[in-house]
Amino acid sequence: MNKKGLLLVVSGPSGVGKGTVCNEYVKNHPECSLSVSATTRKPREGEKDGINYFFLSEEEFRKKIDNGGFLEHAVFCGNYYGTPKDTVMQMIDDGKDVILEIEVQGAMQVRAHYPEGVFIFVLPPSIEVLEERLRGRNTETDDVIKERLQRAKAEFKFIEKYNYVLVNDTVENATKTLGDIINAEKCSMSRNYKELKSEYID
Amino acid sequence: MNKKGLLLVVSGPSGVGKGTVCNEYVKNHPECSLSVSATTRKPREGEKDGINYFFLSEEEFRKKIDNGGFLEHAVFCGNYYGTPKDTVMQMIDDGKDVILEIEVQGAMQVRAHYPEGVFIFVLPPSIEVLEERLRGRNTETDDVIKERLQRAKAEFKFIEKYNYVLVNDTVENATKTLGDIINAEKCSMSRNYKELKSEYID
Repeated sequence: MNKKGLLLVVSGPSGVGKGTVCNEYVKNHPECSLSVSATTRKPREGEKDGINYFFLSEEEFRKKIDNGGFLEHAVFCGNYYGTPKDTVMQMIDDGKDVILEIEVQGAMQVRAHYPEGVFIFVLPPSIEVLEERLRGRNTETDDVIKERLQRAKAEFKFIEKYNYVLVNDTVENATKTLGDIINAEKCSMSRNYKELKSEYID
Repeated sequence: MNKKGLLLVVSGPSGVGKGTVCNEYVKNHPECSLSVSATTRKPREGEKDGINYFFLSEEEFRKKIDNGGFLEHAVFCGNYYGTPKDTVMQMIDDGKDVILEIEVQGAMQVRAHYPEGVFIFVLPPSIEVLEERLRGRNTETDDVIKERLQRAKAEFKFIEKYNYVLVNDTVENATKTLGDIINAEKCSMSRNYKELKSEYID
């Protein structure tokens, strides 16, 4: 009914499987896209500009920050990462839904700029399951796993700022529920009232 | 995740098909029930106490009003009608979802008592479609149809007080969307935060 797309912000601890759920959803919903981040990190082999990332020089990136060109940005390991505002807003204005898969600090920046976004926090069925999943990867040392769990616990403190909690028990269930949330939000009165008022009341 | 059931309040103009959608949903979701109203009207042939209505004497009904025993009540054609509070609240506490299919004034009474309810307004795809549907019944005079359309327009003025708008284009779509709304509400942070806090934060 409402013509604008939704901005969906998806966060959650490392290992919770949020990327898998978002990819699975987008695969079956052509009206929904994953946002492409900008970064100052050098492209790795096979990475394409505009597909994996928008690759910018540090000067370009800083200039874009100064012009308010990012919905959120942060520095990791000496490289800038950010969500380009214009690209995302254009898609939303065109009626496309856009998913930003970003960490908590970035999500809070987006929330400040765009409170009408839909903020979804992905949780494991339990802390124990999260630990099992991290260990199951068999790629990390004990110390790295402990650090990730500590980080997850720090992130949980922000869940109250999100609109929804999505428990990733199975990818299938979580992907379906993500779709339910998106469909329900499209029916929310606050997103439709203006149009309904002119059609049914005025 | 949250153990309490949802109280769903569904309103919408006569002829919009809200009863069909609610019945269709309940049929396939045993965890969700339609609320049974109380009334002082005499039972019609075949109607059973506790199934179609709770049949009360006027004295019993008035006493129950005085004791705050109704979530909402109203008088139509000299008979009282109301939603018994205890029955509904017991089901919700037991984790069952309950649908109240009631008109706008009743919904506003429920909202005052129980703002955590989910308030859904069912709309036709357009006013023209509503008129067609009312005429299609072939059971009403022109005056009755005009009166119903006037009444519908008066009801539309309350839509802002509802959380969701559900467009009944086809029963299948509307029933699915009702389910999406219910699933999404069960994931809302406000309904889950207390439990999540004790599990993941404290």
